[in-house]
Amino acid sequence: MDVRTVLLDFRVESEILDNLCQTGSKINEQLKGALSSVGLGDNMQVHSSGEQFFICSFGHARSAMFSGHRPDLVTLTFQYDRKAKPSPTNENLPVLEEGSMEALKEELKKVFNPKKCKLFPEISRGAAVDRYIPTADRRLVEYDFDAATFEADSEYQNVKIMHSPQYGNMLILDDDPNLAESDLAYTQAITGNGRESYTGKEVLILGGGDGGILHEVLKENPKSIIMVEIDKVVIDAAVKHLRGICYDSMDSLTGDNYEVKVADCIPIMQQYIADGKMFDYIINDLTAIPITTEPRGSQWDFLHLILDLSMQLLKPTGKYFTQGNGFNNKSALAMYEEQLGKLKYKVSFSKENICVPSYLEMWVFYEIWKEADT
Amino acid sequence: MDVRTVLLDFRVESEILDNLCQTGSKINEQLKGALSSVGLGDNMQVHSSGEQFFICSFGHARSAMFSGHRPDLVTLTFQYDRKAKPSPTNENLPVLEEGSMEALKEELKKVFNPKKCKLFPEISRGAAVDRYIPTADRRLVEYDFDAATFEADSEYQNVKIMHSPQYGNMLILDDDPNLAESDLAYTQAITGNGRESYTGKEVLILGGGDGGILHEVLKENPKSIIMVEIDKVVIDAAVKHLRGICYDSMDSLTGDNYEVKVADCIPIMQQYIADGKMFDYIINDLTAIPITTEPRGSQWDFLHLILDLSMQLLKPTGKYFTQGNGFNNKSALAMYEEQLGKLKYKVSFSKENICVPSYLEMWVFYEIWKEADT
Repeated sequence: MDVRTVLLDFRVESEILDNLCQTGSKINEQLKGALSSVGLGDNMQVHSSGEQFFICSFGHARSAMFSGHRPDLVTLTFQYDRKAKPSPTNENLPVLEEGSMEALKEELKKVFNPKKCKLFPEISRGAAVDRYIPTADRRLVEYDFDAATFEADSEYQNVKIMHSPQYGNMLILDDDPNLAESDLAYTQAITGNGRESYTGKEVLILGGGDGGILHEVLKENPKSIIMVEIDKVVIDAAVKHLRGICYDSMDSLTGDNYEVKVADCIPIMQQYIADGKMFDYIINDLTAIPITTEPRGSQWDFLHLILDLSMQLLKPTGKYFTQGNGFNNKSALAMYEEQLGKLKYKVSFSKENICVPSYLEMWVFYEIWKEADT
Repeated sequence: MDVRTVLLDFRVESEILDNLCQTGSKINEQLKGALSSVGLGDNMQVHSSGEQFFICSFGHARSAMFSGHRPDLVTLTFQYDRKAKPSPTNENLPVLEEGSMEALKEELKKVFNPKKCKLFPEISRGAAVDRYIPTADRRLVEYDFDAATFEADSEYQNVKIMHSPQYGNMLILDDDPNLAESDLAYTQAITGNGRESYTGKEVLILGGGDGGILHEVLKENPKSIIMVEIDKVVIDAAVKHLRGICYDSMDSLTGDNYEVKVADCIPIMQQYIADGKMFDYIINDLTAIPITTEPRGSQWDFLHLILDLSMQLLKPTGKYFTQGNGFNNKSALAMYEEQLGKLKYKVSFSKENICVPSYLEMWVFYEIWKEADT
């Protein structure tokens, strides 16, 4: 099954719309002719009045619906199953393939004589590989996924890895794009875009189960890295399917100068505070800033707690890096910045907009540091 | 007018589908209830047989269509005009706003009891600002355009500049994304990504009306740049609306070491060949590789002619840069590479995949040079 929804729009003269609003007009007969090219038109349901019209036709697992919108728009929504086999009762059904919708468009142009028309790329519904993940600002984008590499429900989240020809394997947590093998730009941004030297430094990574940050920072020979990732399913999936992100950095969970702890980071951070341990760099790769109308709720509480614990663990000269959210989620970013002014420690911050290839939107990253007088 | 098409999919148990295929089942009554929340359900048209079903409901410039697809998919396509005002005859019509579709989804979940469901972001049809331009590999993507900055039909093409909050102003020629103010990555790639020094060099730019290449190369103090752009409308629009690309580079069309010729490049290149003039760098920013099934037709003839003329104008140590096409248009890229083997001069090439922010897909760029023995 691969159900395709085809959107086709016509900007028409007003008399065409008037005509369609009258049941039994000649145009309906012409529509029947055009629809026959896609196996429809025998059953036409017409619902019209002086002000509006809807025409639909069903059959053979296909449907077409026209509707008129003042002042000048006629929309067609056509649907068919691309994988449906002709049955004995409909063996004469036209086969729909590449180009059929362009042909339908041309037929309908003869009927509507439009000023402009627009055929959208077909939308696939119910296919084995779902190619649609909205951006963080809720735009509809279609990925080029050609395979579902991995899927599991862990104790914490749904973990999916999809394969994209252009982006490589891509980690998706709870239907939220996390990182693809094309996305070194993300890892560079969340480690300071080359402005920092990690050599000899003590680093704490919160989350980061894809291993990208660990791999990049290890290259610089830091004194130590502690990475705390709660979800072993993510780590195992990354080691197997995201080697273009983690490379061999998580093949062993401990080494001379690093340790990956599979655990909740909060009690660990609290213990470090009790022990008086501090870090040069804390990199928060846990989650994006929540998109909510108010800076309240459990996600914001969590964010606040992490920030407060982190500032306690940060050396006076230390830096804290984190992702923000999509560039267009301005109110979420503004709420976050407002919250930064309400921490126990006085902090300053800078931010930058980064193009992460697989995100299909610009992403904001923060660098935060404690003011000297706190 | 801002007509929204809402796609909502349910993966259901087979008995639900069976039930829906029987006219007059209880489920239809339940559907009526759910649809009443969006002002529909009074008129239900049911078309069903043992194997398939379609249910639709129309009214008040809104429509809903359910269809069933074996083995387990029920789709709803709902359409409404977001800007339509309630009329005296439908003043009790529910107003649809942010969250209404989530509420409809929840109502319908009670009816279908689905294993999974998916609500797509709303698709806008017929709005003043069209936000949908397919990628070169024909995927549906929605831009965040919030204004149409400029539009004109020049002698050669439709020239549009749309404003994107995240990408800045974006040049669109004949509905094809060309370059946005965010896209320095494109200009860097088509000038060799920092591997070349243009200082003291003679450079020919073919096309390039947005001024990005001219601006970047001028920074390096070349001996001379000749840029040949056919369309003055593009240049004028860029000078006014794309200053984040061209900056002041085209405020004057001539300077100490550069000249912008508003002309067809072919006779100019032919004259340079006749005069024995040669260049260190030729940058072809005219057009992407055509997407066709055969390397024939006027676009390919043009591409061939430009390549042949360029190789004649290139110094033996010179380099030719050009864009290719989207990473996923592999057959077009392969055809181009095949054509490179059929030129009068023997050439070698390298290519790289670049993320150009506003393209929403990876893009391939070529570097081509003449072999020493030709």
